[in-house]
Amino acid sequence: MAKDKSPRRPRAETPKGFRDYFAADVTERKVMLDAIAEVYHRYGFDPLETSAVETVEALGKFLPDVDRPNDGVFGWQDEEGDWLALRYDLTAPLARVAAQFRNDLPSPYRRFAMGPVWRNEKPGPGRYRQFYQCDADTVGAPSVAADAEICAMLADALEAVGIPRGDYVVRVNNRKVLNGVMEVAGVLDPSDPSRFEEARGIVLRAIDKFDRLGEAGVRALIGAGRKDESGDFTKGAGLSEAQADTVMGFMSAKRATGAETCARLRDLAGGSAMGLEGVAELETIAALLAVQGYGPDRIEIDPAVVRGLGYYTGPVFEAELTFEILDEKGRKRSFGSVAGGGRYDDLVKRFTGQAVPATGVSIGVDRLLAALRAKGRTSGDVAGPVVVTVMDRDRMADYMAMANDLRAAGIRAEVYLGNPKQFGNQLKYADKRAAPLAVIQGGDEALRGVVQIKDLVLGAKIAAEASLEEWKSQPAQSEVARADLVAEVKRLLGAD
Amino acid sequence: MAKDKSPRRPRAETPKGFRDYFAADVTERKVMLDAIAEVYHRYGFDPLETSAVETVEALGKFLPDVDRPNDGVFGWQDEEGDWLALRYDLTAPLARVAAQFRNDLPSPYRRFAMGPVWRNEKPGPGRYRQFYQCDADTVGAPSVAADAEICAMLADALEAVGIPRGDYVVRVNNRKVLNGVMEVAGVLDPSDPSRFEEARGIVLRAIDKFDRLGEAGVRALIGAGRKDESGDFTKGAGLSEAQADTVMGFMSAKRATGAETCARLRDLAGGSAMGLEGVAELETIAALLAVQGYGPDRIEIDPAVVRGLGYYTGPVFEAELTFEILDEKGRKRSFGSVAGGGRYDDLVKRFTGQAVPATGVSIGVDRLLAALRAKGRTSGDVAGPVVVTVMDRDRMADYMAMANDLRAAGIRAEVYLGNPKQFGNQLKYADKRAAPLAVIQGGDEALRGVVQIKDLVLGAKIAAEASLEEWKSQPAQSEVARADLVAEVKRLLGAD
Repeated sequence: MAKDKSPRRPRAETPKGFRDYFAADVTERKVMLDAIAEVYHRYGFDPLETSAVETVEALGKFLPDVDRPNDGVFGWQDEEGDWLALRYDLTAPLARVAAQFRNDLPSPYRRFAMGPVWRNEKPGPGRYRQFYQCDADTVGAPSVAADAEICAMLADALEAVGIPRGDYVVRVNNRKVLNGVMEVAGVLDPSDPSRFEEARGIVLRAIDKFDRLGEAGVRALIGAGRKDESGDFTKGAGLSEAQADTVMGFMSAKRATGAETCARLRDLAGGSAMGLEGVAELETIAALLAVQGYGPDRIEIDPAVVRGLGYYTGPVFEAELTFEILDEKGRKRSFGSVAGGGRYDDLVKRFTGQAVPATGVSIGVDRLLAALRAKGRTSGDVAGPVVVTVMDRDRMADYMAMANDLRAAGIRAEVYLGNPKQFGNQLKYADKRAAPLAVIQGGDEALRGVVQIKDLVLGAKIAAEASLEEWKSQPAQSEVARADLVAEVKRLLGAD
Repeated sequence: MAKDKSPRRPRAETPKGFRDYFAADVTERKVMLDAIAEVYHRYGFDPLETSAVETVEALGKFLPDVDRPNDGVFGWQDEEGDWLALRYDLTAPLARVAAQFRNDLPSPYRRFAMGPVWRNEKPGPGRYRQFYQCDADTVGAPSVAADAEICAMLADALEAVGIPRGDYVVRVNNRKVLNGVMEVAGVLDPSDPSRFEEARGIVLRAIDKFDRLGEAGVRALIGAGRKDESGDFTKGAGLSEAQADTVMGFMSAKRATGAETCARLRDLAGGSAMGLEGVAELETIAALLAVQGYGPDRIEIDPAVVRGLGYYTGPVFEAELTFEILDEKGRKRSFGSVAGGGRYDDLVKRFTGQAVPATGVSIGVDRLLAALRAKGRTSGDVAGPVVVTVMDRDRMADYMAMANDLRAAGIRAEVYLGNPKQFGNQLKYADKRAAPLAVIQGGDEALRGVVQIKDLVLGAKIAAEASLEEWKSQPAQSEVARADLVAEVKRLLGAD
């Protein structure tokens, strides 16, 4: 037809790197986040929902040095020439809010936030451009009691969503101890913090990759450099053998108890004032947690935790799920990290010029959901509705009244609203909806004042297992008086 | 200091037209949306959360005809040259999803969606660039039973959030009837739908403004045009007196009962096949609703409802809150519309070329929240935590254990984590947190194994009303054994 020469139709596609969440995904995430929010609220944390859009200036880190500051964020220029962008995490907006509303907010300010963030990165398998974060932070609390509280709350949150004690551990370390060790090793000069900065960055990233690279790999990176399997060479930090020994000693400083670990750290970092301060902080955290019943079975001191981010200034922590799953190649491995955080004392200062101590944690929402699925703690399926089928389209009012009666009794129910001509389509629909029951009433049944109730769960079982004769006898279908519809559906659903 | 010559600090500001939601805002909205979601779920609707970002092509309506398609949306170009944008409503993404996943989704597909949408419009008082919508739609159901269901569900949702029966009415009309009336009036030619299109658009918008302009204003717009108070002239549709009478007759066709209204509409639109079809649909809707108990006290036929949007093709509906509030000038007025929707049969067709019938409703989340506040159905304040104050910073572990004990009993509680030096600041903090109680334990109390509990609610009352002597006697403060802390706090909170 000539009319088809109209402009081509738009593609119906989620943009590359983005995705849509359907029923079970949305429901499962909501149940999990509600449980976490309840824990955070009990700890005195208030919800905060900042605007999804920030000025690029406020976001920081991504200041426009080119025409368009699209390095990592999705940004655009508004009509007045200002650059705006979608937030890439929930910490930068918190720093902005803490500065903007500093006269109105309580201090310290405990807040939690849950919501999507956006990254303009190359999408890949399991790597999306929009994903959920769930953060809790305390702004304005200098004491490490705030860090201890975050760790305890994190442990409680994990248990609240269904990770049993023993299946997780929150590991705590302190950047100050690491810096002390670096000082002892001669790669940190307290009188000139910028000296050796590059080397320390390499050491930090190397330690963070211990799980993947192993001791030899980390040692290579700390020292002369590392050639990977492909032959590519990564520049090392250039530490001598003795220096590397000191650093590696730090990584393996974990002992049977927190007290022994702290004693070992004191040996290693004892030559540095900052290192000693860090050890003392770890001891305080452990003591505060112990008195509340959070022993090393739930929260332990582990010098191997460093966290990749550069902005941490004190305690850092990480929640690891310790149960094993099978990876894509069928090998057993520990599930791994689902949350991390630490103390960052300089983010608010960007805005106000005044240092504001802050500490917080971010839970990887998708990772934790995946863990719950792996543990069978959440099921992908959501209860489907009872489907009232339509035999006579003239009697739609009767069918809608049935669904209405069921709903009034608290039962999820709906009428089939497609073209009712092919009854088979209606049952296929009920199947797709994961409907437990279908209600059927033809003209004959209407005259007799009865309805048929088809048990679709039992029916599917019979269809899979029964002989043709058994199947034809329709044991999964029963007839009840219309007046008994609600009671019978309740009985069949086990909800009475 | 010389160091202050560093680049100027970023401004800590929410971007213009955007806002942040703090504790009570977030909590109230969540409670309301959870109640609505529960109703939608019971009707068999499934949640859907689409990506916030869409291709401009898929969004439609805002195709790039200039360098940058920023007309109404926030858009940017990705690295491959495609234009992306933030969604401006929840209907366009639904149409995209319905087309993209048509082979996987059940048909009909009932879905609800709640989330922010973004509009690149000039911000103004109460007019934001990011706001929440809450939609429910049925895609693939040609029958007006689907429209009736949406209306019933909307009524249930309003009652579920706390709008009592009698304080709202869902008003239903049908575009087909209006088109029939237009045909009778001679401004619609069924054999050439594009004829008189501009005039019909003016009529539609005029009718939609009836509340504001009154009959005379609407008549002027339908006829020769209208000069407003400022002297500005708006072009009219150019209808003759007789044509205008027909259209105005439609608007005032509402009678005491739905049946009488339909009879009147039949008189007015009887000369048009489409008009008669529309009246029959309204009768069907009314009948389907009546049998489920939704009488005209909750859902009524009202020909004055037209809805502004051009894309509706059949039934249209609107939920109005009928109770009175005082406007900014202190005058009484009815609260007005909080939700609207209708049947739109062409949105999915854009993608697939095949017509897919759809109908749905959108609730204005902020409007409905404002209504609940106006009715006192939701309070702005959220229960603050019990604040455990810090008298001796050496005994932080003791204070944290107290908060931990309270939380273990389900009580919201926190330790003051700011600088504890000035005790007055701690009580000011507790006040800002809306804390009902403060727990105090100095060294002396610790030795005696007791704590002080300060009733801050009672304290504030006494401070406002009592004499200095009464105030000094501290009737709002009591001492209990540390072991009885939890029980006593429970008692004071009335939570035992």
